[in-house]
Amino acid sequence: MDDGVIFVGNKPLMNYVMATMAKFSNGIGEVTLKARGRAISRAVDVAELIRRRVLPEIQLKKIDITTEELTDENGRDINVSGIEIVLAKP
Amino acid sequence: MDDGVIFVGNKPLMNYVMATMAKFSNGIGEVTLKARGRAISRAVDVAELIRRRVLPEIQLKKIDITTEELTDENGRDINVSGIEIVLAKP
Repeated sequence: MDDGVIFVGNKPLMNYVMATMAKFSNGIGEVTLKARGRAISRAVDVAELIRRRVLPEIQLKKIDITTEELTDENGRDINVSGIEIVLAKP
Repeated sequence: MDDGVIFVGNKPLMNYVMATMAKFSNGIGEVTLKARGRAISRAVDVAELIRRRVLPEIQLKKIDITTEELTDENGRDINVSGIEIVLAKP
């Protein structure tokens, strides 16, 4: 089952915009954009493009910022910030 | 008067963390971190460091994402995403 989650990474912006549009047009009522580190600004770009240009009926439901503890290649713990943006059909 | 706004740009992360700490220790009850474009992820880093490490009593009050219309060096309109994160003393 589609959980409505899109992980935003380093692909071109429009890939994520189209993935979001596809989920909404498949009848999913809520799409969550998740991103970490430098991809955070791309997730914001996706959300803004969707709600202001592509699908103006879509609403911004929730934004959360997070910290994840990861282990780097040298075995050290590092903290990486993340964002979760929930878009919803009204 | 200090309006409690910090514009997060390309300086080292700790500059903004210390600027935020300074505002709270000067008695300002709310600090708003504003960033555009690639600096958005740095603003999230600042907010997460402040509330999870440096000043655990500080709460995340509001997050907003925005679009600003700017004009580039060739006179073309471009849209730039931004974020506003409001941190508050309880």
